[in-house]
Parts: sequence; structure tokens; C-alpha cells
Amino acid sequence: MPVVNINADIGESFGTWEKGDDAGVMPLINSANIACGFHAGDPSVMRTTVELAMHHGVTLGAHPGYPDIQGFGRRPIRMSGREIENMVAYQIGALMGVAAMAGGRITHVKVHGALSNVGAVEADVAAALARGIKGVDRELIHVCLAGSRMADATRQAGLRLAGEGFIDRMYDEDGNLTSRQNRDAVHHDPAVAAAQAVAMAVDGVIVTREGRRIPAEIHSMCLHGDEPTAQAVGGAARQALLDAGVELRGLPEMTF
Amino acid sequence: MPVVNINADIGESFGTWEKGDDAGVMPLINSANIACGFHAGDPSVMRTTVELAMHHGVTLGAHPGYPDIQGFGRRPIRMSGREIENMVAYQIGALMGVAAMAGGRITHVKVHGALSNVGAVEADVAAALARGIKGVDRELIHVCLAGSRMADATRQAGLRLAGEGFIDRMYDEDGNLTSRQNRDAVHHDPAVAAAQAVAMAVDGVIVTREGRRIPAEIHSMCLHGDEPTAQAVGGAARQALLDAGVELRGLPEMTF
Amino acid sequence: MPVVNINADIGESFGTWEKGDDAGVMPLINSANIACGFHAGDPSVMRTTVELAMHHGVTLGAHPGYPDIQGFGRRPIRMSGREIENMVAYQIGALMGVAAMAGGRITHVKVHGALSNVGAVEADVAAALARGIKGVDRELIHVCLAGSRMADATRQAGLRLAGEGFIDRMYDEDGNLTSRQNRDAVHHDPAVAAAQAVAMAVDGVIVTREGRRIPAEIHSMCLHGDEPTAQAVGGAARQALLDAGVELRGLPEMTF
Amino acid sequence: MPVVNINADIGESFGTWEKGDDAGVMPLINSANIACGFHAGDPSVMRTTVELAMHHGVTLGAHPGYPDIQGFGRRPIRMSGREIENMVAYQIGALMGVAAMAGGRITHVKVHGALSNVGAVEADVAAALARGIKGVDRELIHVCLAGSRMADATRQAGLRLAGEGFIDRMYDEDGNLTSRQNRDAVHHDPAVAAAQAVAMAVDGVIVTREGRRIPAEIHSMCLHGDEPTAQAVGGAARQALLDAGVELRGLPEMTF
Repeated sequence: MPVVNINADIGESFGTWEKGDDAGVMPLINSANIACGFHAGDPSVMRTTVELAMHHGVTLGAHPGYPDIQGFGRRPIRMSGREIENMVAYQIGALMGVAAMAGGRITHVKVHGALSNVGAVEADVAAALARGIKGVDRELIHVCLAGSRMADATRQAGLRLAGEGFIDRMYDEDGNLTSRQNRDAVHHDPAVAAAQAVAMAVDGVIVTREGRRIPAEIHSMCLHGDEPTAQAVGGAARQALLDAGVELRGLPEMTF
Repeated sequence: MPVVNINADIGESFGTWEKGDDAGVMPLINSANIACGFHAGDPSVMRTTVELAMHHGVTLGAHPGYPDIQGFGRRPIRMSGREIENMVAYQIGALMGVAAMAGGRITHVKVHGALSNVGAVEADVAAALARGIKGVDRELIHVCLAGSRMADATRQAGLRLAGEGFIDRMYDEDGNLTSRQNRDAVHHDPAVAAAQAVAMAVDGVIVTREGRRIPAEIHSMCLHGDEPTAQAVGGAARQALLDAGVELRGLPEMTF
Repeated sequence: MPVVNINADIGESFGTWEKGDDAGVMPLINSANIACGFHAGDPSVMRTTVELAMHHGVTLGAHPGYPDIQGFGRRPIRMSGREIENMVAYQIGALMGVAAMAGGRITHVKVHGALSNVGAVEADVAAALARGIKGVDRELIHVCLAGSRMADATRQAGLRLAGEGFIDRMYDEDGNLTSRQNRDAVHHDPAVAAAQAVAMAVDGVIVTREGRRIPAEIHSMCLHGDEPTAQAVGGAARQALLDAGVELRGLPEMTF
Repeated sequence: MPVVNINADIGESFGTWEKGDDAGVMPLINSANIACGFHAGDPSVMRTTVELAMHHGVTLGAHPGYPDIQGFGRRPIRMSGREIENMVAYQIGALMGVAAMAGGRITHVKVHGALSNVGAVEADVAAALARGIKGVDRELIHVCLAGSRMADATRQAGLRLAGEGFIDRMYDEDGNLTSRQNRDAVHHDPAVAAAQAVAMAVDGVIVTREGRRIPAEIHSMCLHGDEPTAQAVGGAARQALLDAGVELRGLPEMTF
């Protein structure tokens, strides 16, 4: 029986500004990537988010990003490896501190936005990210794109790697995500997303725009919680996976 | 044989700006209160500070403050109890994350500046501070002024309390610290500071400006590392304590 | 023929987070109080807001606040008079710089949130606010509560003062605003708000909860743009004022 | 009689952290590039710096940078042209506001650190910088490296350009500054710096490491105020220029 995890970026409000439908998305996922205050989130938002996740039995992960609230962590900042590893350790630790207040424990990490994009292609940044994660807790599971520099660095560091796919994003023929510049980058049709999720979990393939099927080891599937169609898309994918006999688990209950 | 601890606020540089003589002060102390990035310090400064402390066998503590880099945490900010407890847990956790990179462990907390001053007199803030510390790790030792609201809240929370005295600050007749507005608020004479330290450790008293001796349980004595006379004052106090047969210990090696 | 101004706090989005319905409110007001990046707004949000206001013929004002994005400027921070005057001058100047990009000119100032509340009761803060405004441009009109310390300081500084009333807030019997802690602090009924606006503009009175009519010189009436009923309430008040023969003007076209 | 200007980056303290010897450097320069709070400086530091400059008859310029206090504006951040132009206008305006408090006026702009480096080579960023400067005040003089993309954009925008040279930096054979990675990147010998300054002002040439003389139109020469040798180097250069019959002027008193 295939086993897969559904994750989402959660806790992206900041101060009095709200973002995303965390309460609506939480029942659909198994693991939450929680913003740590550098690109979104603040200590109180993080606390609320941890409590909401725990209420739904969703496992907790850190979602560290660049120090750029205004830019939501989407603007690359050139930082040294040492700056990156310390900044990542700081953010993971901070979430651990806040989670401990609620009796929660952080079990995975997924890097956010531009920091993830840079780490996917620059080996130095990827290595710094792996050092930052491992330095805090070598049992942390790193959710990242299989085949990226970040995945290489994760394996070299001896960390557990959860290969990530996307429920609601279009894939190009080369297996990369279709750029968000394109209109069809995000699947808003629940049926399309559901089929994509099942293909990943049951057949172990990514299906491209043209229908090409590329083998890929997907342990965790991302649902974008900030899309207005998130609940419909996530709900359909979740149901389709269950109907196909796929078991949904939190990341710490999986084997890698 | 009396046992006492010497602590200092350390790691108060930020980015490219330096503050204090951490390398000069570290050999004189047993426990370091390390800024956590909210009023001073940043992830890389924190890492360097942790490594320096560990190199000197100095035990590690978090020094959380208000979110106010520009004001160095010296400006009171009215925050709710929930904001405070989460903010404190965030900062302690962040330092734990960075310290873990270096193989270090956080064993105490001392609250910084205006947050400490407000917590000393406002019961709600004091309770929030105690919740934040205990929520992260109930084994953390809280260094604070005996007799303050913060001390009450610390005991009520069941946390271990290290009563704090000051090596290099003048005490008024009522046992409070002389305000820094006054010229003689800080002892720059090593002999005066040394005598004050010995009186605290051996006789268990605070000696006021007029020579009044007020009984006080002092477990840890603070040295202000940012004074130009810090090394002379700290060195003299340390030697005088050793000459008087006082044993100097890290906070986790003490009993409370 | 009575003349009055309608103002609203505008441009309170930040980075990728949106707040308020600026496009919906702009057609209903004459003058906009634009957040300056310290409690809300950022340079690009400010630019967009200035352009939107100018498109609607709405005059431009600065809305300076405490340096506290996370707290939205609602948490008092104890700052010196010098810190406050410079911080206010900085924010007004910053908006002037951004407005100049769009060919716009800043003609009034209204202080935001906790900074306004503290300035209303503390003479030192009020004087610092007046110095900050006057120091940048002595022609700036200061919109503030008549009878407050801020109003006193404004007059003493020789600045023009626009006395402010509220279209959509309940007044207590003593003429103060009903605290937002109370359920009925905000008028959501367009008819009630419209009657209140006409009483202020035509009769020169504030009407309290119990119907007491307190004489008050109201030059500018605030509409809260972040209430879901803002458009209905503002639209009704605007129409009622026009029906009552009141002329609505931008602040620079008024006499004080 | 040749005319030249000496400029320096000034006001780079932040909050309680001090940097540079502003009081020592101010008597040696004609024009100050004042940090605007994004990479260094805060409203109160800016006010103090403006007052110090005015006391010495030094003309005032804005020194805008990336929003990165921790990184001192030395880390490139990928931002859109719109973000850059608004951010630059914001910073220039902010300094104008603070300067107005002291009766001062901003007459030039010099871009700081990584933002300047990126603008020197990327045409889009250069154009955005020119738009930001011109948008605030088309009379502002832009101090920048002749031959750079920024210089091109400045001329295309119709802004006045002050070509910049360096008193205390080594030049490579291609006319570029020797990287700070190299030990000999900065001249610490007053005689060497003085000769370089005279060659620029009198002969209109940059002299490279190997003694090559490259014609260059230098209107303003930068002195690095944060070098420990700044006073000796600046004093020697200033005296040598005066001895060589060069007239030193503030930027607004020059013709471009």
C-alpha cells in the first residue's frame, strides 16, 4: 500500500496582517511548514499556528527563509555560507522554542521561497542549508526537490530526505515546475490536481503538461494554501488518494 | 566554602557594529547572557559568541529583550502577556538552535534591559516571562533580582532562581541599584568592586553607599562587560573572591 | 454654507500583505492619511497609494507612527522627545520623497495609533510631535483631536490645526470616543453614521450615546476604511452631508 | 585654477552602536554622504550628522542603500526597478525631512555599497536609481563612477553627474578599483594618497598601481572615514591639494 504525505506552507500571517486559510487547509494536510518570523510569521502567529496544527494532528516543520518581511522571502539576498547556516539554525530553533510552549516538537524542515530556489542550484548555499538543519538536530527530515543541489547536500550530510512533488502545480516537459509567470502554472481544477496526486503516489511519476510521465520518488506533496481554490483542490486530491488506497502519514511516521 | 557565579551580558554586537570586549571579559566570568537578535546580536554574532564562551568553559544563557534593535531594548514597549511569552520562547529557542550548531546547550536565562525592568515591577509581565522560560525548558535557571515580581513569578512557576547581585554597581540605602543617571552609579575602582563582591559572596550582604549591610542571597554576580574598566574591575573581583576562598562555578553546577 | 473634510487612514498594506479597501474608500474621502513605513506601508505601497489618491483628487497627508510593523503601531514605545521629533520628520519626509515621484505634495499630517494616543495625553510627546511636523514644513496642517495635549502643542507651535471628529465611532457622555473594547464602539448602521456626520458639520456638535449634544469644532471627519461597512457607512455620510448643503473639501482648500 | 570636492560616507552609526570618526573627518571634507536608515543611520543619528555637517559648512547628500541593517547594505538583494526607485525616493525624502528640522537642504546623492555596485553594471537598476533621484528633485547632483551604467543612466535622465575618484583606494591597470580582498586595496600612507589626489585634481588622471595614468574627469574625491588612518590620509590629501592651488568646494558650488 503506497504511503505519502501532504504538506503545506502555513502560518504566513504577520502581526495584524492575515494570509492564507490555515484553518481551512489544516484538515487536508499531514505536515505543516511553519514560517519562522524572517519572511512571515511572528512569535504569536507561530504559537497560534503550532496549536492549530497540533489540534489537527498535523506534524510540525520549520519553514526558514531570507530575512525579508517586506519581500516575503522572495528576493534573493547574497549571503555567505556562514550567515545562511546560522540564520537557518536560528529560525528552526526559534520555532522549536515556540512549539515547546504548546508541547509540540519540530520534525521536519522545508526551506522557503528564494532561499530554496537559490539552494536548489548553488552548491555552496545548499551545503550551508544542510549544515544549518543538521546542526540543530540530525533527526530532522528535509523536504526538498529530488535532484536539486539541496537534495545532494542533504544526502551528503546524512540527513533524511523527503522528495517533494506538487499537487497543484503544472510540470514542464523537463520535469521542472512551470514558471508562475505562465497562466497555467497552478492547477485550479480539483480533478486535474487529484489525478496528478494519484499518479505521483501510486505510479511514482510526475505527469507533464504534454502527458509525459517522468519517474520520481515523491514522499511528500505540497498543497498551496494561499490559492483561493486550495480547499477544493486539496480536498479532491486527498479523497482521490484515499480512494486509490494510498495511506496518508505525517513525515515522522514515514520511512526514507 | 561559599560558591558563587559571575555572569556578564555578552554578544551585544550587531551586523558590522561591535560592542563590548567579549574576548577580554570571557576569561573572567562563569556564565554568559547572550543577546538573541531582538535588541542586539544576530545569528552570526550569536554563533561566534557561543563558540567563544565554550572555548572559555563559560556556560550559556539566553538574554532575551524587546524587539528593538535601534533602542537596544532599553525602551519599554507595551505588549500583551501572550506576546511576551511567545517572544521570549522564540529568542531562547533561537539561541538554542544556534548553540546546537556549536555543540552547546543553553542552561540559564537572564532578561535584558527594559523588559527586565518592567518585569521586575509588573506582575503580569513577570508571569509572562516565567511562562516563556518554563515553556521552552523547565530546567532553565532564571537569573534575576531577588525580591522582584520576576523572582516571585519564577518561584511560583517552579523554576530555579539564581538571585543576582552586581559587582560594579552602587546600591542605594534601600537596596536598589543607584540610577545610572547618577555619576557614581558604576564602580570603576577595582578595589571597591572587589570588596563588594567578597561581601556578597562571603557575608551574604549587599553594602550600600552609606555602608549599610543588607542581607541578600546572591547566587550570581553581574559584571558589566561594556564598561572600559570591565577587565580591571572584573579581574580584581575575581581574584579577591578566589583569595577569600570562594568557589566560582557555572550556573548549572550550582544548587538553588 | 458649512465646509467639512472627510479623511481616512489609507495605504496600510505591507509587502505582500493587504489591508483595507483603499480603492473602495478613496472615492468617498477628500484627504488621505498615508502610512509611512513604520507601522504599515512600504515605499512601493506608499507610491501606489499616492497615485490612487491623486487619481481621485484626494489630498495627501502623512500618517506617522511608532517603529513597529509587527504591532501595527498600536503598542506604546517609550521614546525621548528627540527620538520622536526625528522619527516623525523622517516619516513625513519619506512620504514627501515618494509622493514627489508621482508629482504629489504632502499637505497634512495625522499621527497614527498609539503614538497619537500617547501624544493626546503627554505634553512632552505632544510637543515633540509638533516640532517634528513644523520642522519639516510649517505649512503642514495637523489633523488631531481638539482639546488634546496634541492640539495645545499644535497651536503653540503656530501650526494650523484641523479639529477631528469621527463619522463611524460612538461617543461617550464625556465627549470621548467609546473604547473599542465595547461592542458598540463603531457605527455599522449607515443612517446612524450619516446623522452623526451631519450633526457635526451643520450643527457643530458631537452627539453622545445618550443623545447629549456637545459643541465641537470639527474640520475633518474620519472614516475607518478597514471596517467591512466602510463603503456603506462612508457613502451614506457623504451623501447626507451633500444633501444637507455641506461642502466637502480637501484640507489645503479649507481655512483654519 | 582646478576645482574639486572631497566627499565621505558619514553617519554610519546605528542606535547605540557607533561607527566611524565623523567628528574627525568632517573638517576634512566638503560634502557628506549621509546614511538614511536602511543600511545604517537612524532618524536621531541622521539629525546629529546633519547638524555636525552644517556646523562644519559641509554640504548634505543622501546615501541610500539596500534595506539591510544587519548586512550594512553590502549584500545584493534582487529587487524590481519599481521597488528600487521607490526605496531610493523614500530614503532621500526621509533625510530631507530630518535635515529640514535643522534648517538643512539635501543637494546630492551617492548610492551606497551593494546597491551602487549592482547599479554600476546593471542597466535596469541604474535606470531605476536615476528615476528615484530625479523623481524627488531634478536638481540633485548624482555622485558616481564615470563610465558606469549608473553614470549613463544619470546623463540620460538629465541629472547632473559628479564623476567620482578615490583618495585612498588603489586602482588596477584597467582603471577599476583594486578589490578589497587585496591587502593593498586601501592607501594608508598619507603621502601616497596625497599624490593620488593631486594627480586627479590637477592632471585629471587616475594613477594605477603600475603607474599608468588614465585620463578621468573627477569632480569629487571620496575619503573613507571608517579607516583608522582616515584623518592622517585625508589631512595630507587636503593640504596637498591646497598647496597645489586646487580649490575645494561643496558640490552645489561646482559646475558640471
